[in-house]
Amino acid sequence: MSGRQQLAQRTIDRCRALAACTEEPGRTTRTFLSPPMREVHALVSEWFEAAGCPVAIDAAGNLRALYAGSHPAARRFLIGSHLDTVPNAGAFDGILGVMLGLALVENLAGRTLPYPLEIVGFSEEEGVRYGFPFIGSRALVNGLTPREIDLITPALREFGLDPGRLSLARLPDTVAGYLEIHIEQGPVLDHLNLPLGLVEAIAGQSRFQLSFSGSANHAGTTPMALRKDALACAAEWIWHVEQLALANSDLVATVGRLEVEPGASNVIPGCVRASLDVRSTSDAIRTQAASSLVESAQAIASRRGLQFACLAHSEQPATRMDLGFTACLARAVEQSGAPVHRMSSGAGHDAMILAQRFPTAMLFVRSPGGISHHPDESVRVEDVARALDACALFLEGLEAVHA
Amino acid sequence: MSGRQQLAQRTIDRCRALAACTEEPGRTTRTFLSPPMREVHALVSEWFEAAGCPVAIDAAGNLRALYAGSHPAARRFLIGSHLDTVPNAGAFDGILGVMLGLALVENLAGRTLPYPLEIVGFSEEEGVRYGFPFIGSRALVNGLTPREIDLITPALREFGLDPGRLSLARLPDTVAGYLEIHIEQGPVLDHLNLPLGLVEAIAGQSRFQLSFSGSANHAGTTPMALRKDALACAAEWIWHVEQLALANSDLVATVGRLEVEPGASNVIPGCVRASLDVRSTSDAIRTQAASSLVESAQAIASRRGLQFACLAHSEQPATRMDLGFTACLARAVEQSGAPVHRMSSGAGHDAMILAQRFPTAMLFVRSPGGISHHPDESVRVEDVARALDACALFLEGLEAVHA
Repeated sequence: MSGRQQLAQRTIDRCRALAACTEEPGRTTRTFLSPPMREVHALVSEWFEAAGCPVAIDAAGNLRALYAGSHPAARRFLIGSHLDTVPNAGAFDGILGVMLGLALVENLAGRTLPYPLEIVGFSEEEGVRYGFPFIGSRALVNGLTPREIDLITPALREFGLDPGRLSLARLPDTVAGYLEIHIEQGPVLDHLNLPLGLVEAIAGQSRFQLSFSGSANHAGTTPMALRKDALACAAEWIWHVEQLALANSDLVATVGRLEVEPGASNVIPGCVRASLDVRSTSDAIRTQAASSLVESAQAIASRRGLQFACLAHSEQPATRMDLGFTACLARAVEQSGAPVHRMSSGAGHDAMILAQRFPTAMLFVRSPGGISHHPDESVRVEDVARALDACALFLEGLEAVHA
Repeated sequence: MSGRQQLAQRTIDRCRALAACTEEPGRTTRTFLSPPMREVHALVSEWFEAAGCPVAIDAAGNLRALYAGSHPAARRFLIGSHLDTVPNAGAFDGILGVMLGLALVENLAGRTLPYPLEIVGFSEEEGVRYGFPFIGSRALVNGLTPREIDLITPALREFGLDPGRLSLARLPDTVAGYLEIHIEQGPVLDHLNLPLGLVEAIAGQSRFQLSFSGSANHAGTTPMALRKDALACAAEWIWHVEQLALANSDLVATVGRLEVEPGASNVIPGCVRASLDVRSTSDAIRTQAASSLVESAQAIASRRGLQFACLAHSEQPATRMDLGFTACLARAVEQSGAPVHRMSSGAGHDAMILAQRFPTAMLFVRSPGGISHHPDESVRVEDVARALDACALFLEGLEAVHA
């Protein structure tokens, strides 16, 4: 086994060790500033300090490890991802990006970079504890709202953090850029048999809550022609949602939740509530598709004599990664010997937040089977070694700026 | 107001009075042999005895009122429906048929028919208390199974009935026939603006439980082409169910229950469980449609790479009403001045059970708005008067046999 592979294996082993820090025995669940996050901070700090990086926990609970640079005027470069998990999580979502940051420092074997490298383990990305995500990265980039701060204050205090110091966590404008390495959490790379993916954009997202209201009548006594079946109506529309999304490669649309009332086998459904989630890296494609799908729901309901209502309950524009850093990362992936596969991310990531203020690049590592948010989530050691190679070359490339 | 209309209004008033006998204050709920059934028996017995009909409660809890006939050899004719209700019921489902039996006797004003007339108020038709229906009529016709008797024995004893005497409730083969008058519980007569419907057959029914199993993946990271979306699959099939049933006027098919898992707006549904209810008065049409719908579910799932399973969990053949009695009833409806509208019943009724041994006829009374199994269930006084006219003429017609 080469040194790189040993380092990749150690990275995986560390992710698995951190998965044992959990709120729920037997499964990995670690929400914002929950008690096991202390164990994570202890372990991760020990590893970083052994690698020559002093560690601080900022007022938002982010773990921040600094590898000092040699050039006095050089701007700081950030590598990071998140340390929290969903309930019953796998071992790699988020954590892998932080452990690869550590491995990149170890890979330098004491050699100093001209610029300071900061590795950040964000305290919160999944949105589990408070129902809103990106607490860690938002505190670093643009700050949280007063209402959000009020909400999380008890958690901060309980963890020994001072909410009054939250504004100090905010990054200065002089940060040079941000790189996030993350598992794909989807099947694309595995399907194409590729180790790495270069993220060009993170999809924007529109979410809606729709309802179709007809008449809940007796399934035996109501002839087909006199029905106002809310489920048949919703089914026609769901088929339409799928067809529209299939026709555009830069679009996904999902009806994930469907509630049917009254839900008895011998009663025609009177009411159906459905969710609609539309994503694209093109805001124009997304908003046009979302409008078209809401209009078609309205038209189908109206033709069938049903009432229709729709509530748009969140919208997030697409985030483009920085062209320059992405080009550097592409070159590094190519130099590492891996094929350069450009793709988009359909899931949100801290990179989306960091990109609001700093040039950001993102690298995906294949998710075998596309499995994520599940204990079976995994990575291949050879893919992690590839990511390490590519990112080491990327960091090396940045040195030229300071030469 | 004519005498018939007064009698119709009194019939409606009695139904409303009985609706106050309930297990749940503020709403009408009266399951098999529940305490309020005693109040019903007391009121109804008082009314029947005042009309010259002695009343007995048989071992299955059925109320049986006998109006003696004048001809010594004449066979007994039965009129009946049920006295129990669904939870939060209306005032007319079942009860109206029993109260119309009483009104028919009152309408005779003491005149004796050549044949004995027995009016039965069945103790149980809705299947609420034990999950299986027709306890009252089945005890009268073919008896209950030992297992069913075991189940209901505590309820019988608590009501003061002797399970050992259940077999004595069984009707002799000499019963001449059975007439049931019932609200339609559907929108057809109201839609056609007709007061009465002549039931030619009660639809047969096939029920299935189907499941579609795909992959619950991330709604953002899984391209449309790599999905195995169980809801999109089910939606395609539900549309197919509706189309097939719309194409045949003697067929209804309903997907009333649909459970989507995991049911989160940002997760592609991995599993959907659906009910399928298929009804027709033609057993051939029903079984062919059911097979075709299960096959199409299989085919759609298979084309999409999903797993499919199907459990057929009940089947009931169609029941034809007796041709002779139905012809008599048609003539009587015509004589009463109402249009003769022949139709089928998509819901099950006690008539279905009685028809297993005795020539049976059934008359529907319009359900305004098609509303039933709901406190808003109603009947129009003029429709009830029509039903009274028609059934009085029907009973008169039967006298000719004994002339």
